[in-house]
Amino acid sequence: MPNLLLIQSPDEPGLIYKITAVLFAHGLNILRNDEFVEPEGNVFFMRTEFAGNPDAGALRGALAAALPPTARVRLADPRPRDVVVLVTKEHHCLSELLVRHAFGELNATIRAVVGNHEVLADLTGRFGIPFHYLPHAGRSRAAHEAEVLAVLADYRPDYVVLAKYMRILSPGFVAPYANRLVNIHHSFLPAFVGASPYAQAHARGVKIIGATAHFVNEQLDQGPIIAQSVIPIDHTQSAREMAQAGRDVEKIVLARALQLVFDEKVFVHRNKTVIFD
Amino acid sequence: MPNLLLIQSPDEPGLIYKITAVLFAHGLNILRNDEFVEPEGNVFFMRTEFAGNPDAGALRGALAAALPPTARVRLADPRPRDVVVLVTKEHHCLSELLVRHAFGELNATIRAVVGNHEVLADLTGRFGIPFHYLPHAGRSRAAHEAEVLAVLADYRPDYVVLAKYMRILSPGFVAPYANRLVNIHHSFLPAFVGASPYAQAHARGVKIIGATAHFVNEQLDQGPIIAQSVIPIDHTQSAREMAQAGRDVEKIVLARALQLVFDEKVFVHRNKTVIFD
Amino acid sequence: MPNLLLIQSPDEPGLIYKITAVLFAHGLNILRNDEFVEPEGNVFFMRTEFAGNPDAGALRGALAAALPPTARVRLADPRPRDVVVLVTKEHHCLSELLVRHAFGELNATIRAVVGNHEVLADLTGRFGIPFHYLPHAGRSRAAHEAEVLAVLADYRPDYVVLAKYMRILSPGFVAPYANRLVNIHHSFLPAFVGASPYAQAHARGVKIIGATAHFVNEQLDQGPIIAQSVIPIDHTQSAREMAQAGRDVEKIVLARALQLVFDEKVFVHRNKTVIFD
Amino acid sequence: MPNLLLIQSPDEPGLIYKITAVLFAHGLNILRNDEFVEPEGNVFFMRTEFAGNPDAGALRGALAAALPPTARVRLADPRPRDVVVLVTKEHHCLSELLVRHAFGELNATIRAVVGNHEVLADLTGRFGIPFHYLPHAGRSRAAHEAEVLAVLADYRPDYVVLAKYMRILSPGFVAPYANRLVNIHHSFLPAFVGASPYAQAHARGVKIIGATAHFVNEQLDQGPIIAQSVIPIDHTQSAREMAQAGRDVEKIVLARALQLVFDEKVFVHRNKTVIFD
Repeated sequence: MPNLLLIQSPDEPGLIYKITAVLFAHGLNILRNDEFVEPEGNVFFMRTEFAGNPDAGALRGALAAALPPTARVRLADPRPRDVVVLVTKEHHCLSELLVRHAFGELNATIRAVVGNHEVLADLTGRFGIPFHYLPHAGRSRAAHEAEVLAVLADYRPDYVVLAKYMRILSPGFVAPYANRLVNIHHSFLPAFVGASPYAQAHARGVKIIGATAHFVNEQLDQGPIIAQSVIPIDHTQSAREMAQAGRDVEKIVLARALQLVFDEKVFVHRNKTVIFD
Repeated sequence: MPNLLLIQSPDEPGLIYKITAVLFAHGLNILRNDEFVEPEGNVFFMRTEFAGNPDAGALRGALAAALPPTARVRLADPRPRDVVVLVTKEHHCLSELLVRHAFGELNATIRAVVGNHEVLADLTGRFGIPFHYLPHAGRSRAAHEAEVLAVLADYRPDYVVLAKYMRILSPGFVAPYANRLVNIHHSFLPAFVGASPYAQAHARGVKIIGATAHFVNEQLDQGPIIAQSVIPIDHTQSAREMAQAGRDVEKIVLARALQLVFDEKVFVHRNKTVIFD
Repeated sequence: MPNLLLIQSPDEPGLIYKITAVLFAHGLNILRNDEFVEPEGNVFFMRTEFAGNPDAGALRGALAAALPPTARVRLADPRPRDVVVLVTKEHHCLSELLVRHAFGELNATIRAVVGNHEVLADLTGRFGIPFHYLPHAGRSRAAHEAEVLAVLADYRPDYVVLAKYMRILSPGFVAPYANRLVNIHHSFLPAFVGASPYAQAHARGVKIIGATAHFVNEQLDQGPIIAQSVIPIDHTQSAREMAQAGRDVEKIVLARALQLVFDEKVFVHRNKTVIFD
Repeated sequence: MPNLLLIQSPDEPGLIYKITAVLFAHGLNILRNDEFVEPEGNVFFMRTEFAGNPDAGALRGALAAALPPTARVRLADPRPRDVVVLVTKEHHCLSELLVRHAFGELNATIRAVVGNHEVLADLTGRFGIPFHYLPHAGRSRAAHEAEVLAVLADYRPDYVVLAKYMRILSPGFVAPYANRLVNIHHSFLPAFVGASPYAQAHARGVKIIGATAHFVNEQLDQGPIIAQSVIPIDHTQSAREMAQAGRDVEKIVLARALQLVFDEKVFVHRNKTVIFD
């Protein structure tokens, strides 16, 4: 990963000039630059890949002096992100992530997999990743979440990925991982919120189905959308066949969303994403 | 249009054999045949294009004798369908239909256009089609609908097309045109039911928008879906720009749906379509 | 159209800083900015929408002083582009452009339509646009092209659009309109170069067909690609049905490409385009 | 897999009737039926899923008596297909197949993997599949192919899958596996035949890239196409990034093509496929 500068700031005239002046004065060369101004909130977003060896403290100081006081400036850590994956029974998203991870394509380190069922332990083990089986049966939601949180605390992941984790998370679970918890929802949100979206899609007779990768917030399936994709279907497909077809979409959408997130190309603003793809 | 036989029947063993036996005995040659059995309701659908000059009465009689008593058998009229188009202010769907009609590509005859605004009268006139301006201002919904229904009654159309007609229709309007009233909804149903779907999509930050052509039934935007299509969008597009981009999708989806309907490729069963594309 | 600054320059450190410094010094506020550095040729492209009332001469002078001597700087003319459309017999692309033009959606003025057949004169006339019928029969290619060039000379268009103009153009015709001559090719280039691409696609049994809008250069179908799109097909479609289905793709791809060109979002570099969409 | 009847025959009137009469007489119930008549060659294709316990010999005999003498009739073997996969260095297609196989989603048994490089031995071993390392270095093409053919002979696979096997096969290798050798080509054929299609696509500046799964015949990349898919790209992507993005398309297209092939939904006729999807 190259040097990365991420800025979110109230907009005002001359921001690009002021920022690039600081970079120029520090002898840093811009390789790629993306900006966007959200017109409604008048918020400025900028992501800059640059070459050179900056004195991070001096650079941050100079930028702070040049920018509005409420601007957020971040020099991204060049190390791969640490990730824990939560799963239930379906393998396709986890398989996709494990394979990419095994071949160095994920720009992240999968530290562990946590499952509320045990069926994916064998697959995980084949790739040499620790699997934590934390069954929810016989436990309260709070007790089960506390156990999962405890495992997460051990790994201190940058991101938690819900790879077909079929449990609804309480706000208390979500809060400490704000904008760091990525879910794949098996529908083209907001079309079929909640459970059994393929059954819903089949009952409604839609001609296209899709999948949505999003950050999780306190309302089920309502967090900022990162990526979506669709496939055409027709009347000949049962709800079960639609689910099968949908899995290929789900895993690719999740992988693409994670690539954007791990490459620091995603800003979250209110309930939406700004993505410099 | 070739000879067309359309059959919807409770399923039972041997139906294809019995039907094709009747066609063979009448010296008719099958050019294309499509069947489907809806597994839940155990309903059999068959659409057969055939060559030959059948005695329609004899053919119908023989089929009735061979099929279950509740089977519906239809020999489709080979003439193009008669159509009336209802519009408000947006031109893109009407333009698409008028151009296709002018060049003989619609497999239907546009008998008239009815608008609750007058802005599309000029366009319609350029193509030599009668335009009826029936403003809704100052009229009750019932009174306005009665005026529109009166115009429709004059033309006795096979189908009524809502080409961005931005009025909600009452059940009394819809009922006599069951499965003959086609609407284009400017969203990927059921994602954004109701008004201002692009504003809704923008507010939700979705990454894909779409359009849905469907038959109208008594519940707004809930009728059987005929065709859907989508395009990708991103954070840089305002709700207005999304609407602009969406128009290209809307007009193509509507045109494709009408082609399927006018070619008698669409069966309606409960609230879904079976389409032999 | 807002104020637009278009810069193409050899890349060097600090370019964004230097350009934005000039804009800031002239009291101009950047609304949207896009840059790209082509890594192979080390070429810098920048498109800037800005607010304010610049003294064009002073701004150009200041930019020239700040940039490498071979940089090309352009302040885009805010007026809609003037366009002449060349056609043969197929209507769908011309219809699309005429309808968009009639409703003010083209960001260009269609000054005239030129046809080597007369069949589209009626359609053109319905929209009040002059139609020049210049038959090629009985004329040499050179003589016919001279006639077309003479009509073009009268209108002095910014762009010439080949809307299914089925004549191969000689280099002498193309040269004066370098990067100003847009063609829609009825295939997914470079898959089926030349004539009858749908017949070629059918013979090859492909499962997807497409269309390509591109600038025309001296080699047939080899110019810089602006936009492409595709649709799935299958074995049931004849070459003629594929052509029908392909027309919807062609007209939308052409319209989208022209929108990009007319909005000055397309840079041409060697034989490729850089597009700030 | 249900009972499957596959028929390819010269077309003549009454074929569907004659075939379904035989099925009806044998007490077999049609679950799904697809037919197609290739109009150019006047060839009839039919794929019938049926319920019941046929006497295969009697059924074949009755069909042979009812059909033209050159008709080909096949009762498909309900067992999963046996497959050997050939690979070089890239893992993504093999990974996809191994994962699907491990979870019983392939409708085939991967008997072995053969690689001309050793890098994928570890991955293959994790899934408990034999890996045969047959390096080509220092061997003539003929000698190397003989070694591969010898391994194949041991497994007697129904199909051989080239999962990014980067060696050109001689006609002598291909012939015994006619219509049983499936390749994934990393381009949208016929756009970029041969090696380095992504480099070619990048050089040409295309806006869409794709992948093609096809049967292999004696001419490189010219065999019958089974499935294709595409993704949009733009000027910001290097040839290497295009290749990365293309891998997701390749593996899904290959998996989809194999599903069609293993489910006996693909007929090959001349150099094209008829697919009952």
